[in-house]
Amino acid sequence: MRTVAVRKIDRAAPTVVDALGKSGVATVHEAQGRTGLMQSYMRPIYSGARISGSAVTALVHPGDNWMMHVVGELCQPGDIVVVGLSSPNTDGMFGDLLATSFMARGIRGLIIDAGCRDVRDLKEMGFPVWSKAVSAKGTVKATVGAANVPIVCAGLLVNPGDVVVADDDGVVVVPRLDAETTLAAAQAREANEEDKRKRLASGELGLDLYKMREPLAKAGLVYVDSAKDLDEA
Amino acid sequence: MRTVAVRKIDRAAPTVVDALGKSGVATVHEAQGRTGLMQSYMRPIYSGARISGSAVTALVHPGDNWMMHVVGELCQPGDIVVVGLSSPNTDGMFGDLLATSFMARGIRGLIIDAGCRDVRDLKEMGFPVWSKAVSAKGTVKATVGAANVPIVCAGLLVNPGDVVVADDDGVVVVPRLDAETTLAAAQAREANEEDKRKRLASGELGLDLYKMREPLAKAGLVYVDSAKDLDEA
Amino acid sequence: MRTVAVRKIDRAAPTVVDALGKSGVATVHEAQGRTGLMQSYMRPIYSGARISGSAVTALVHPGDNWMMHVVGELCQPGDIVVVGLSSPNTDGMFGDLLATSFMARGIRGLIIDAGCRDVRDLKEMGFPVWSKAVSAKGTVKATVGAANVPIVCAGLLVNPGDVVVADDDGVVVVPRLDAETTLAAAQAREANEEDKRKRLASGELGLDLYKMREPLAKAGLVYVDSAKDLDEA
Amino acid sequence: MRTVAVRKIDRAAPTVVDALGKSGVATVHEAQGRTGLMQSYMRPIYSGARISGSAVTALVHPGDNWMMHVVGELCQPGDIVVVGLSSPNTDGMFGDLLATSFMARGIRGLIIDAGCRDVRDLKEMGFPVWSKAVSAKGTVKATVGAANVPIVCAGLLVNPGDVVVADDDGVVVVPRLDAETTLAAAQAREANEEDKRKRLASGELGLDLYKMREPLAKAGLVYVDSAKDLDEA
Amino acid sequence: MRTVAVRKIDRAAPTVVDALGKSGVATVHEAQGRTGLMQSYMRPIYSGARISGSAVTALVHPGDNWMMHVVGELCQPGDIVVVGLSSPNTDGMFGDLLATSFMARGIRGLIIDAGCRDVRDLKEMGFPVWSKAVSAKGTVKATVGAANVPIVCAGLLVNPGDVVVADDDGVVVVPRLDAETTLAAAQAREANEEDKRKRLASGELGLDLYKMREPLAKAGLVYVDSAKDLDEA
Amino acid sequence: MRTVAVRKIDRAAPTVVDALGKSGVATVHEAQGRTGLMQSYMRPIYSGARISGSAVTALVHPGDNWMMHVVGELCQPGDIVVVGLSSPNTDGMFGDLLATSFMARGIRGLIIDAGCRDVRDLKEMGFPVWSKAVSAKGTVKATVGAANVPIVCAGLLVNPGDVVVADDDGVVVVPRLDAETTLAAAQAREANEEDKRKRLASGELGLDLYKMREPLAKAGLVYVDSAKDLDEA
Repeated sequence: MRTVAVRKIDRAAPTVVDALGKSGVATVHEAQGRTGLMQSYMRPIYSGARISGSAVTALVHPGDNWMMHVVGELCQPGDIVVVGLSSPNTDGMFGDLLATSFMARGIRGLIIDAGCRDVRDLKEMGFPVWSKAVSAKGTVKATVGAANVPIVCAGLLVNPGDVVVADDDGVVVVPRLDAETTLAAAQAREANEEDKRKRLASGELGLDLYKMREPLAKAGLVYVDSAKDLDEA
Repeated sequence: MRTVAVRKIDRAAPTVVDALGKSGVATVHEAQGRTGLMQSYMRPIYSGARISGSAVTALVHPGDNWMMHVVGELCQPGDIVVVGLSSPNTDGMFGDLLATSFMARGIRGLIIDAGCRDVRDLKEMGFPVWSKAVSAKGTVKATVGAANVPIVCAGLLVNPGDVVVADDDGVVVVPRLDAETTLAAAQAREANEEDKRKRLASGELGLDLYKMREPLAKAGLVYVDSAKDLDEA
Repeated sequence: MRTVAVRKIDRAAPTVVDALGKSGVATVHEAQGRTGLMQSYMRPIYSGARISGSAVTALVHPGDNWMMHVVGELCQPGDIVVVGLSSPNTDGMFGDLLATSFMARGIRGLIIDAGCRDVRDLKEMGFPVWSKAVSAKGTVKATVGAANVPIVCAGLLVNPGDVVVADDDGVVVVPRLDAETTLAAAQAREANEEDKRKRLASGELGLDLYKMREPLAKAGLVYVDSAKDLDEA
Repeated sequence: MRTVAVRKIDRAAPTVVDALGKSGVATVHEAQGRTGLMQSYMRPIYSGARISGSAVTALVHPGDNWMMHVVGELCQPGDIVVVGLSSPNTDGMFGDLLATSFMARGIRGLIIDAGCRDVRDLKEMGFPVWSKAVSAKGTVKATVGAANVPIVCAGLLVNPGDVVVADDDGVVVVPRLDAETTLAAAQAREANEEDKRKRLASGELGLDLYKMREPLAKAGLVYVDSAKDLDEA
Repeated sequence: MRTVAVRKIDRAAPTVVDALGKSGVATVHEAQGRTGLMQSYMRPIYSGARISGSAVTALVHPGDNWMMHVVGELCQPGDIVVVGLSSPNTDGMFGDLLATSFMARGIRGLIIDAGCRDVRDLKEMGFPVWSKAVSAKGTVKATVGAANVPIVCAGLLVNPGDVVVADDDGVVVVPRLDAETTLAAAQAREANEEDKRKRLASGELGLDLYKMREPLAKAGLVYVDSAKDLDEA
Repeated sequence: MRTVAVRKIDRAAPTVVDALGKSGVATVHEAQGRTGLMQSYMRPIYSGARISGSAVTALVHPGDNWMMHVVGELCQPGDIVVVGLSSPNTDGMFGDLLATSFMARGIRGLIIDAGCRDVRDLKEMGFPVWSKAVSAKGTVKATVGAANVPIVCAGLLVNPGDVVVADDDGVVVVPRLDAETTLAAAQAREANEEDKRKRLASGELGLDLYKMREPLAKAGLVYVDSAKDLDEA
């Protein structure tokens, strides 16, 4: 591993980043062809938050959160810190002091493939974190990693400047250069869903709305009246 | 697997189904001889909900939620959809659009041995789901499964028409024909507990209330005054 | 296993026990040299509770909660019951009736390396539990274990009379004789953090506050302006 | 649960059962439309064994192997005992004494959704077991379950008399009435594979043998010469 | 944690230690009342080994194997090194160099609640290890722990000088002072099993050998001839 | 995801690739500064194999092994196929037919972050596979992924042409451009170890060989004669 910190990264346009956040994780994930999701073990430390931002990345070692201070300086308001580990770990690498510093710099949240602590304080402060675990296990500051290099977080490759969207459904990452296209697809999807929602709410069946009856029959689905017919069939 | 959907199923009496819901999962589980619980990885997507209903079942394939639309049509108000998978999966097979449709039809909730998404919306809508995971991972509609056939969900065999009770403690299933007997046992249990609760709240010990002192001694429990006596014993 | 219950145990001073609770899990864990944490799978059944107390211990068998009644009698107001298992188990060994009894005796909470049930009731009653699982699976009362003996709970050795602190971050245990020293260290830590919190909140960087720039450079961290420089380096 | 043991069950024809065993788990699983597999946590306690037989089922309670003696009597030579649990458990419910008894009765192996012990002895005796765990944890004989009733084992519904095939790839179950059809499909599949194996061994590509080039292109696969072209594309 | 190494420990008599090894894990576990087993995730790195010895213990930190060298010096021929971790870890803390040193000192094997590497070499050398994982992940030598103090390994409290028995079934620990009693119980158990094994091998049923028919009936087991009777019952 | 296959990739020199294989996983991992290891859940389907080769990568979808045929054509003798998944999966994506084809083309082995089947046949053929699971679950050929693009496999970023070394200890990946440097470091490490191995085998302690006594004392390790002194200390 090269122990390096990259100062400048390219980011997507702030309006695009913010608009992706409004769409939410599930819609953005669909909009980019069902790709870009982190594994589902990444959970928010409290429910209800939804953020988007540009990824500032850190590659850190198990039980060592020294690089967290390095990435703080590299961030702009609107960024999200995304942390990958050099090997699996659940130690509590982030707490209320770091969060105070991050909030002061306009950082919107943290995505960390390890543990988080001080979760009661973080909830009160309103600083959202998605993590693999909650753990009070403290860390040292002994070994340097890297900042703003490509990392693997929760099974997903994240490049600095990629757009991160996170909410109660998990975390999705949009490659920086795909951000506009993905946003357009997401918004088209939402427009399309609005009408469907009304029709479904009025009791219309998805079978009819999506014209599924014929394809289902072709795919082999057979209806019988009761289990008795099943035995006779 | 036979790709079939059964239209008509027998259900337990609505008054029995509703009364079982009032008893809750732990009591119903005890009332039927400590059987019928799904494995404990099945968790509610938000806390506080408690539902009961008749099971309408679906057997679906990993990453494919086509059959969810089929079961919607098969439900009556008061039903609960219970979904088993043909092999293990955590994809987000259910979201707010399907929930809108399910609510419009009077379906009370969903039990799914896979993932769920749009959990913030589902919580706002008040549509409760018990699932193995929260995941935004989308699905396709390509392969048919079966509806209203016996399925395995979270390690438990569920037959269409069985009574499902779900709350913060998990999910319990009562075979349709045992519903009345189980309800009687549950209500007897509750009546019995009410008196005990008062006595325990007043400070009476379980040791005395349940007359455990003699059986404990017979079973080999010995009291000593302090650890020191332990070393000498 | 000796099937024994020890009646009298030594406890730390109540003022020390209570003050440790105010410091919280993460701080106390740091204050005793990053030791004493239970494994991170121990989670509160509802968020927001923070308790401290003297450990009254029980060693129980899987699926058998008989000893829970025995420990109830051994407790004083201010105690916390800590339960270890003779082999791994997730059954729901504790529910609202036992909680009613425990509350009546002034017990502050339960730490159990197994499952818990009736979590909705427990939340309403305000009786906090940290457990490995939520499960409605009931138990029997057939085999005796031991009470107020050393136990292993969630990977940690706990002696009767040790001080337990539990909150949203997990559970930490302080050996009884170390309680005062640990409290002093925790309070010194908190005093020290207060000033740092203000400076970080004002935008000062941790890099400067902790004087990390030189040690980071010595440890090998190199800054480059952009990824382009990285390729050339 | 009804505590009952059923003496007589229907079995598939021995020649069909044995022939299915020769095809092996992967082929039989494909031959019945990719269904019938137990979850992949079921592993053989030693490698190299491949068995088939008719399922004699037992439903047992965690930590209690009393019913194992009951099923022994219900078996014929050529049967395989399949054990489901009333709740998850890894205790060592089976060892060399039971295996001695099972072998004396011509039972071909054991499939158990719990633990197994004495694995060194079992390997020497040549009695194969597929289990969820290896564990020396002993059991009691206190509670009765059921025998030759439908059970759930490793996520799969198994009916008494179903055909079980088990080898290093896992465990597959064929419903009794589908046994002949599945065998025919399995044997057709094997005949078909023999020719393919030779052609692949000679260096012919699957792309050509299966005529995949055109469908891959239609499905969107694009070839480029090098990563450089990728950046330009 | 006190960073201390204790030079002298008491051990059980070598003849007792060796005889316990001959009985094996399952028998010794039963002989001491079904207690003393480590959790079943502890697996041998190769099959077929069976060892017994006196525990020399080490408490080490994740990713740091410095103490492994300290315990080497504290061992006598016939000892087994047992390693607990201060927090969960799977790094490969032990390899062929340390094994060379341990073998030269007559150490019989290693039990480690973390990872092991060089497993091909260890198998060739015949140095058996029971571990939580196989991992090549290397370690540092930076932080001291403790040696010959009580530790928790795989959920079990182990005191220096306790007797350890390990084989393909897992790891069992016998408190030093119980070693003789446990051996006597183990040998009585084996003598008793020999006769049973012969009778079971001759085809006698466990139901008859253990006189289970009457107790099973009393416990509620009912026999029916076929599933048909079940429906009518 | 771009559905693309890259035909030409750069590889490290064959002599370097082969020499890295001789060093083995643990040594190579150490030689590149304790980086590059896949997570420890990646296990060989049979023990004893040790291979090295140039990575030809595939990104595939869960339950779909179509791209496996595509990568076969892209390989040269001496390559190793490395497969990442677009979301977590354990299906058996590789079996004896594909292995026959891969062997015919001189491919040395497969690293797959999913399942593998036909393991008995693969062992007989001598085609080694490292996988996350063994599972007979079959796959379809319906969706294209990508070949020879950067992928994430078992938590690690792998670029086409990187050097892969795999043995019983797991899988390590060396970036192509670091291959020579890493080999030199690995060989230096081995030369250095040879002498140490002899001295340790002769009974010399690591404490003396590595001159650890003074640093241990400085780091705080204290020796006492017996546990009694511990209590008095």
